[in-house]
Amino acid sequence: MKTGTPKRETGRRDAKPSRRPVSASGLIALLTDFGTADYFVAAVKGVILAANPQASIVDITHDIPPHDIEAGAFTLLATCSSFPDGTIYVAVVDPGVGSSRRPIMVQANQQVFVGPDNGIFSYVCDRYAVKQIVHLTNDEYFRDPVSATFNGRDIFAPVAAALSTGIKPGHLGETVADYIKLKPLSAEALPNGQIVGRIINIDRFGNCVTNITPVELTPEMIVAGAKVRVKRKLVKSFRSYFAEETGSKDRVFAVWGSAGFLEIAAAQESAARILNASRGDEVIVS
Amino acid sequence: MKTGTPKRETGRRDAKPSRRPVSASGLIALLTDFGTADYFVAAVKGVILAANPQASIVDITHDIPPHDIEAGAFTLLATCSSFPDGTIYVAVVDPGVGSSRRPIMVQANQQVFVGPDNGIFSYVCDRYAVKQIVHLTNDEYFRDPVSATFNGRDIFAPVAAALSTGIKPGHLGETVADYIKLKPLSAEALPNGQIVGRIINIDRFGNCVTNITPVELTPEMIVAGAKVRVKRKLVKSFRSYFAEETGSKDRVFAVWGSAGFLEIAAAQESAARILNASRGDEVIVS
Amino acid sequence: MKTGTPKRETGRRDAKPSRRPVSASGLIALLTDFGTADYFVAAVKGVILAANPQASIVDITHDIPPHDIEAGAFTLLATCSSFPDGTIYVAVVDPGVGSSRRPIMVQANQQVFVGPDNGIFSYVCDRYAVKQIVHLTNDEYFRDPVSATFNGRDIFAPVAAALSTGIKPGHLGETVADYIKLKPLSAEALPNGQIVGRIINIDRFGNCVTNITPVELTPEMIVAGAKVRVKRKLVKSFRSYFAEETGSKDRVFAVWGSAGFLEIAAAQESAARILNASRGDEVIVS
Repeated sequence: MKTGTPKRETGRRDAKPSRRPVSASGLIALLTDFGTADYFVAAVKGVILAANPQASIVDITHDIPPHDIEAGAFTLLATCSSFPDGTIYVAVVDPGVGSSRRPIMVQANQQVFVGPDNGIFSYVCDRYAVKQIVHLTNDEYFRDPVSATFNGRDIFAPVAAALSTGIKPGHLGETVADYIKLKPLSAEALPNGQIVGRIINIDRFGNCVTNITPVELTPEMIVAGAKVRVKRKLVKSFRSYFAEETGSKDRVFAVWGSAGFLEIAAAQESAARILNASRGDEVIVS
Repeated sequence: MKTGTPKRETGRRDAKPSRRPVSASGLIALLTDFGTADYFVAAVKGVILAANPQASIVDITHDIPPHDIEAGAFTLLATCSSFPDGTIYVAVVDPGVGSSRRPIMVQANQQVFVGPDNGIFSYVCDRYAVKQIVHLTNDEYFRDPVSATFNGRDIFAPVAAALSTGIKPGHLGETVADYIKLKPLSAEALPNGQIVGRIINIDRFGNCVTNITPVELTPEMIVAGAKVRVKRKLVKSFRSYFAEETGSKDRVFAVWGSAGFLEIAAAQESAARILNASRGDEVIVS
Repeated sequence: MKTGTPKRETGRRDAKPSRRPVSASGLIALLTDFGTADYFVAAVKGVILAANPQASIVDITHDIPPHDIEAGAFTLLATCSSFPDGTIYVAVVDPGVGSSRRPIMVQANQQVFVGPDNGIFSYVCDRYAVKQIVHLTNDEYFRDPVSATFNGRDIFAPVAAALSTGIKPGHLGETVADYIKLKPLSAEALPNGQIVGRIINIDRFGNCVTNITPVELTPEMIVAGAKVRVKRKLVKSFRSYFAEETGSKDRVFAVWGSAGFLEIAAAQESAARILNASRGDEVIVS
């Protein structure tokens, strides 16, 4: 059975050498929970363009649910494999803004990530070799004054703009060794052959993205008849693509998703709705 | 009565000569049903910018209702008359992704359209002279590997990027003669003088866009007292602009809309709500 | 008590000299109530890029509630202090489109604002020195034909594009002295020391932005125990940042917001929901 096993997205570690220096480009990608109805996103962009009119700004999303650091961390991970080396990310899901949580910059995947040290870079750091982490302390590169409620505009945007103009990370603060980590994204392979995973994201189409990759669930296991259970419901089939499922609309199936994880989906229907599934729900393969 | 008859938007055929070769520019416009909360749109942009850092990317919309090919086709048609020659569109409303439906490229309106062959280019091809259709088969220009669930990132984005760097359409696959067509957009003019149309789009403001153009409904017919009926309700007046209607907020009126079609509207109210109208509802002019 | 009093955002008058001529840049920022699901925003962008392929277009927001001029005016004010000199704004919340309301261009804050004369530039003009107002009458710079329902595409976009290519404001129409004003944004300081303000915006997080600034509510007054009441409910504490509040999630507090106004907020909760507050609700400081 062809199950469309992806080759590139699933490696736990990036194959790219990390000895090359990361050279920040003029491309700045934004991920926030700011929504798109207020002035927040525009203020970030204005500050960047005031400092570097040549910067090229791309929105990843601003619809991360408010304060949902895990959702931000997942979306950043799923995005960064498609962006070129040197991309600068500004990622702001920041319930602790103004508190003692540190503003940081992380170099990984030949790219640069700027934002709060609250776990949002955790999944990227889990998968890719981390080259450097800098605690952003040099307020010479901050907006003046720095408000206590909007570091996205006052710290992260100007720091990203500075990087995009060639300022070296070493000028932005002190190198540090640690960063806040979320619960790891990896699924657990038990000695009895079972895989215990969980739903880590539910997308617009209602597809339930699990944390199971071809590392745990090999093509051989699928051929041998591996069974997937979510919310005590058996997922009966593996499919290569969505429209391959021609049975009932209510029938959920498993498919390798485009972020390199196993997904539970339904044909033109929301699998999350059918299963009444939420992020965090357990997924068992046996 | 001035009814603001538009001059440019309503021609069935483009006046621009189609003999000139279409020269793709660096401007890439995206239309999808991906929503803006997930990583999908960003992945498409990242792939384009990795291949062509000079590309200029514009979002048309990513809020086409999931799997709604007709809505995508209408929005593409209404948009493309405002964009410059050479614009490259990536249009992905693609319930059949991964199946045998073909990935194609269409040249029309001195512009280039890239996406699935499922009818999404149908309305553009109805209105404008089609210069060439290419079945995208040359995987040299695809991302490697091509996932079975995200051709937007893996086929359409890199092909659009290739076009934007000057790759000729002939290198991307084989010229084909046909493409999937939706039910035509045109209204029917009956021998008895009646026009039978339908609602083809409902916009954010609740305006009901019909498929009736000044070709069927001439200024003379309006002056002579043509009557418009939607859902058995008589639309009492023609207006030149929205605020001209100063009667009850609940009074719907007809107005020539900005896409060149007759629209049923209400003053600062949703005509769709007042009429309980949906796309596909019949509109009769007598 | 440190209350994070902002320095830059709160001045009623811009400190920048207004004698320098405003030199429009290639940066065009868009604010509309068009939503993001239809072709409207893309049509505006297409027209700009057709006229000036070098223009750099930034979205402020397109999610201003339909026809809500006050919301547009506030968001424009809160945004424009973050953008560089020379930025050209296209602001279209335009229920009167097609009527006799004037299309105008305003120069203020070393920036240029293009849109309908219906109050949308009122708050910007209140705060910053206005250098020039031009009634846009020269249809040489309009799209041809001008539809009666979509001046955003047919007048404001091409005028903004013209400005971005260096066309002087004087070529676009006649200088006029007046413009439509909304109810002023400023709070009232009563002789008895009370401040009577109102909620002027509620953001995505449910924070209630008031029109009270450090001009009315000085640090000394806060230290002396000033009390804030909204909807007859006492706001018990002043905080420097959101996460400083560690009491009940339902406890609302006051904080200096990033737009330079006093905000009523709650810790990771919607203060608007807790207070059942709406824009326009009175806020009393005593």
